[in-house]
Amino acid sequence: MRIMILGGDGYLGWPTAMHFSARGHEIAVIDNYLRRECHKERGSDSLTPILGLPERVDAWRDVNGAEMQSYLIDICDAQALEAALREFEPEAIVHYGEIPSAPYSMIDRRHAVDTQVNNVVGTLNLLWAMRDIVPDAHLVKLGTMGEYGTPNIDIEEGYIEIEHKGRTDRLPFPKQPGSFYHLSKVHDSHNMVLACRVWGLRATDLNQGVVYGIQTDETALDDRLLTRFDYDEHFGTALNRFCVQAVIGHPLTVYGGGHQTRGFLNIRDTLDCVELATLNPASRGEMRVFNQFTETFNVLELAEEVQQAAQHLGIDAEIDHLANPRVEAEEHYYNPVHTKLLELGLQPRLLNDELIETMLGTIQRYADRVVPDAIDPATKWR
Amino acid sequence: MRIMILGGDGYLGWPTAMHFSARGHEIAVIDNYLRRECHKERGSDSLTPILGLPERVDAWRDVNGAEMQSYLIDICDAQALEAALREFEPEAIVHYGEIPSAPYSMIDRRHAVDTQVNNVVGTLNLLWAMRDIVPDAHLVKLGTMGEYGTPNIDIEEGYIEIEHKGRTDRLPFPKQPGSFYHLSKVHDSHNMVLACRVWGLRATDLNQGVVYGIQTDETALDDRLLTRFDYDEHFGTALNRFCVQAVIGHPLTVYGGGHQTRGFLNIRDTLDCVELATLNPASRGEMRVFNQFTETFNVLELAEEVQQAAQHLGIDAEIDHLANPRVEAEEHYYNPVHTKLLELGLQPRLLNDELIETMLGTIQRYADRVVPDAIDPATKWR
Repeated sequence: MRIMILGGDGYLGWPTAMHFSARGHEIAVIDNYLRRECHKERGSDSLTPILGLPERVDAWRDVNGAEMQSYLIDICDAQALEAALREFEPEAIVHYGEIPSAPYSMIDRRHAVDTQVNNVVGTLNLLWAMRDIVPDAHLVKLGTMGEYGTPNIDIEEGYIEIEHKGRTDRLPFPKQPGSFYHLSKVHDSHNMVLACRVWGLRATDLNQGVVYGIQTDETALDDRLLTRFDYDEHFGTALNRFCVQAVIGHPLTVYGGGHQTRGFLNIRDTLDCVELATLNPASRGEMRVFNQFTETFNVLELAEEVQQAAQHLGIDAEIDHLANPRVEAEEHYYNPVHTKLLELGLQPRLLNDELIETMLGTIQRYADRVVPDAIDPATKWR
Repeated sequence: MRIMILGGDGYLGWPTAMHFSARGHEIAVIDNYLRRECHKERGSDSLTPILGLPERVDAWRDVNGAEMQSYLIDICDAQALEAALREFEPEAIVHYGEIPSAPYSMIDRRHAVDTQVNNVVGTLNLLWAMRDIVPDAHLVKLGTMGEYGTPNIDIEEGYIEIEHKGRTDRLPFPKQPGSFYHLSKVHDSHNMVLACRVWGLRATDLNQGVVYGIQTDETALDDRLLTRFDYDEHFGTALNRFCVQAVIGHPLTVYGGGHQTRGFLNIRDTLDCVELATLNPASRGEMRVFNQFTETFNVLELAEEVQQAAQHLGIDAEIDHLANPRVEAEEHYYNPVHTKLLELGLQPRLLNDELIETMLGTIQRYADRVVPDAIDPATKWR
């Protein structure tokens, strides 16, 4: 299949590109290095040293023999995006090409506006370009479980059957996102519903949980194929950040009481989920939603898991409860449905000590690259 | 009360400014003439000849004696907006300052992007500026009933109590908007919920129906105080457009079968609703939603009402069913709740023949200004 990966230079985008390429698909990667620029702006960097996108593509050819096309363009530039779609004619488009950080979007007005404009305009450009150039292609769009917030009812996969005053309808699940970033994904989802309904596009919105892990089958083949790994306050997520903190002797920073519960998944499962969604496309006119995670944890549990795994390696990690920089419920009900990807055949890799120990080992190799000042949260929601 | 009207040069903004000023409030109007520019771009114009904003403010001083401050600035320019808020220090902000057209947003990619960026960024700038400069001010934001679409259940006012698998929660009412413009209002609503929850702002989202009417108590005082009146395919709405069509001998253009049902209200009721919302502010941290319309009609009924009223004036109006340029359900359930403004004291002026006849009479005065080519829908949803 001809698959185009938007955000193909990112933490998940680059491993996704190699995953599909290793399985014989024809791949194009698009990126504008925006994430790299955001890191420069904030004085942070990937833990792992990563090559430029064309150099990664060259290294992949060396290792695997397969060619990938790469486009260093901004999807907010509609003409550049349209030209790439005309040239590559993708059958599927996996769209990771957005600014993915809640704290970054809450820094100040400019960062909120930049996040929403970048994400919403990029996706709008894509929808219009698909309509005109590849109307039969399948859009596999990365959303986030954070779109739903923490309602007091079970979270369904995108839609909910509501009975109200004696009548019923199946409606979009109400969204209660907790940052301007999460809101940008909600805006995208709403825009995609219209594009599918009015133009007959086909789309799958993957409401993904928090991803952890540092290696996939392909990144492990050669150091030149490593993916980026973020641990800083803006782009680092809970488990990944805890592992880096354990390695460098920084307390594991739990925000508030740590009873905030979220869905999590292994980066290898992300690749499987995206593959399953791509190989089983939505129908024309269908905007399908999958909740993409394999298990739920609260943040304190995760810190304790890391603490325990670190102990096995002789590392004594402390847990530090910081005043929560976010505005979020710390005690809440959380029971999201996540059966659709399992029905397509997903075999979850659940979190275990061994995986965390392997992560800690890999992180130790790059520990001298850590910027400790970038870890603690300076960005406050209020 | 010190009230700032964003979009104060518009069809509703200008009458709202005079309405409040006539009742002794201190008023500032902000506009960037964007609607006037959109009309120039499309080759259309207001039926009524209107003065520039500073000239209108001068005329209002002549007629009423009251001063208004006017700012010819773009709220997408955050610094200009912040300076105006610092100078005027509003206690309430009535926000009409958005591109308000579904067809305009569906013309092509550029118009979709421009509509969403203009509306979302303007409102985001406002929310951040309120947080920093006037955190106690009350935002009265114009949304649209079109945010809800046409679900098969009763539409509640912003929130719905959902019972699901034995648990219950009060959640945002699911939104199914039908154009990129309506989507921009949905995006705004979601952004406002976060700003109220995280920063403790106070806001009222007025999900308004389709407004009709050409005169208010204040516009009728002097021709220099007229408000704009649109009848073209992009900015003209059903009843207003039908009245112009009847006057110039153009068939009344009903899209499709005409059984699409919507909420409607008189422009004078808009002013009363906005006044009621403003004088009874939301609490700190509250994002309140009112459904703002007084009665529902289907489009064919409205055309027949106009046809009948025109007959009394000796005008023989034909009804023409055009192929529907929109993608929308033409047969659907529609029963939106609209009690909150009634509870605050709204006294609806229901549609009647006499009002339509008066509108037709006013339109006849300006009939030579009509641009007939701007009426029929060239913009198609598909």
